[in-house]
Amino acid sequence: MLPDGPLRREGKILGPMDRPPDARLRVTYHLLCGPGETPEQKGRDIAYEQTVELPVGCAPDHVEARFPGRVEGIVPLDASRHEVVISYDLDGVGHELPQLLNVLFGNVSIKSGIRVVGVEWPAALLSRFPGPRFGIEGLRKMTGVGARPLLCAALKPMGLSARELASRCLELALGGIDVIKDDHGIADQSMAPFAERVPRCREALELARRETGRACLYLPNVTGPYDEMPHRRDLARATGCAGVLVSPFLVGVDVLRWLRDTSDLFLLAHPALSGALLQPSHGIAGDVLYGQILRLAGADAVIYTNVGGRFPVTEEECVAINLRLREPMGALRPALPVPGGGIDVARVPRFVERYGPDTMFLIGGSFYVQPDLRRAVATLVETLERLVPSRHR
Amino acid sequence: MLPDGPLRREGKILGPMDRPPDARLRVTYHLLCGPGETPEQKGRDIAYEQTVELPVGCAPDHVEARFPGRVEGIVPLDASRHEVVISYDLDGVGHELPQLLNVLFGNVSIKSGIRVVGVEWPAALLSRFPGPRFGIEGLRKMTGVGARPLLCAALKPMGLSARELASRCLELALGGIDVIKDDHGIADQSMAPFAERVPRCREALELARRETGRACLYLPNVTGPYDEMPHRRDLARATGCAGVLVSPFLVGVDVLRWLRDTSDLFLLAHPALSGALLQPSHGIAGDVLYGQILRLAGADAVIYTNVGGRFPVTEEECVAINLRLREPMGALRPALPVPGGGIDVARVPRFVERYGPDTMFLIGGSFYVQPDLRRAVATLVETLERLVPSRHR
Repeated sequence: MLPDGPLRREGKILGPMDRPPDARLRVTYHLLCGPGETPEQKGRDIAYEQTVELPVGCAPDHVEARFPGRVEGIVPLDASRHEVVISYDLDGVGHELPQLLNVLFGNVSIKSGIRVVGVEWPAALLSRFPGPRFGIEGLRKMTGVGARPLLCAALKPMGLSARELASRCLELALGGIDVIKDDHGIADQSMAPFAERVPRCREALELARRETGRACLYLPNVTGPYDEMPHRRDLARATGCAGVLVSPFLVGVDVLRWLRDTSDLFLLAHPALSGALLQPSHGIAGDVLYGQILRLAGADAVIYTNVGGRFPVTEEECVAINLRLREPMGALRPALPVPGGGIDVARVPRFVERYGPDTMFLIGGSFYVQPDLRRAVATLVETLERLVPSRHR
Repeated sequence: MLPDGPLRREGKILGPMDRPPDARLRVTYHLLCGPGETPEQKGRDIAYEQTVELPVGCAPDHVEARFPGRVEGIVPLDASRHEVVISYDLDGVGHELPQLLNVLFGNVSIKSGIRVVGVEWPAALLSRFPGPRFGIEGLRKMTGVGARPLLCAALKPMGLSARELASRCLELALGGIDVIKDDHGIADQSMAPFAERVPRCREALELARRETGRACLYLPNVTGPYDEMPHRRDLARATGCAGVLVSPFLVGVDVLRWLRDTSDLFLLAHPALSGALLQPSHGIAGDVLYGQILRLAGADAVIYTNVGGRFPVTEEECVAINLRLREPMGALRPALPVPGGGIDVARVPRFVERYGPDTMFLIGGSFYVQPDLRRAVATLVETLERLVPSRHR
């Protein structure tokens, strides 16, 4: 358990195969130690801060023996950084997402130089969460898009009336878009109230369907006040929406789990407010946050900000998120990566090549700067249909 | 509006007195500009990112004229940092807390070098939120503590049974504590399920009340799954709890507003997971986040991590949070600052002198390391009653 133990001597961290049968939640942190800090002490501080929140040895013996996190291994990364694995008792983690997040990064969020870079999810924990209802395969069935990458348009801008937004829905759908989502800043403002906007947009999409013969999904933004979200969910369903958009970091990650449990809606997650967690030396790595936690919570598709757009992220981070969303994770269905945040339509083919076809590209401004919205969409859909991404064939 | 305008020439930012009558939400940011960034461009990027999310000039005229944020003033702070004020149309902000948070820091959270350091709250916006139901005065009435600082104990550790926790409640209450809150990591785990823990702890406190003649408040942690929180609220009320603890950043800030609107419970907010927002050059300043946003949402009392404890914060930040929680803010009641996170009982008098009597000190480990819990509490209560903080008399 401690620095001089066999784990440290072997210079490696126990892998899943070596894991003892009494499964615990194993969290890998990268620790940046400041002056006077050692990884041993910092690791132990985290282990206690995230659980019993008492000085070492101060809890009654039967608690002390089991509930404080255990430092399982420490490996140096460079002069100032160490990789430290801490395991947590599953009964302390419990069976609820808020407490899971709390154990992973609740109080230590207020410290510094602590980054969650990996989590080993015991089967006993995974089985408590259903994960995506539809995932990648589900969306392919719903949209009828067999093999090519999918396309999602952001319905915007905030400030348009419901009627104007519906008219944009019609253009996007006639152009052949697969999915339309509300811009995440369009909530229930007076310009386009939810209760007016959703039926109008759905109506527009029905018109389009009669003309094109193809269903385009509309995902209204149900992010809202705590006690309004059930009504928005219900209105979305009642008007025939196949799914919804939600910003879990504005309303709590468990809202995804609740929507998953109480509806048959496709769930698209938006990353608003989550960015502060993505710091290079403090926070939660994007692939864990978006690729594992949101998938566990039930997101069928997860928006993240793509490299080369308006946000400072690396391609490596994007690829890691894609990997986590799609890789085996207990019995959870794979979820769909949705890169967005300033994707230029001209660069989509390059990202298809890099990310593979099981990706949904979220396009906003790059459609709207073009003079003809319908034409802009149709051109990109045609491009995607022509693309045969060599490495993913 | 832009860098060469009169605001920049005067080298100051418009104050409330100069504000035009069509009130907007004015947000002050500190921007750290990296290579190739200018404060003018970065300010404009924020203004558009947080609203229409389109390139400048791409929205229809009637939207472009009103909904993008407006850069109202830019003042250099030092070689690399600028203070920039951006104003937002109130109809874009709407009337819901998730969208308010989204406008303040939603998408730009994923950028870097952007820190919200001040918000001018128009009366039209403040009037949409009721703020604290009880606040400082309310808690003094409920506890019967007239003038001295208040004392709150954290009930811990996670891993104890409901019966063991109730027995600690009894000791704390017999010692004369004013308020007991669940440790925020105690949720609904099998060791002490909410439905068993809350009645047992309440029962213990009734026993104590009969002995001491004084009511001690017990605030159970209702932070939990989305659809469980109404049950926890109801059980808290049914068992006679006067208030509850909630971690708004784990379950969404609007949960505070909802609890405020649907119960008569005293609301204590816990900062778990919020820490990533407190970075020195990116995030939301603590006094805005804890001192204004949580108060607006309805928190009667707000826990923050105190200087000199286990968390890296400065006394200046703590004082700023105290100030914001208590200062006039529309018709909202003042809320109670609750410094915690490693407060040594020996240092409480010093902090009373610094923070003033309208403060509730949250003590955890520093009680539990002492051999006699009841005696530990009684000693600190006696100290507080003897204290006459000279500057706050």
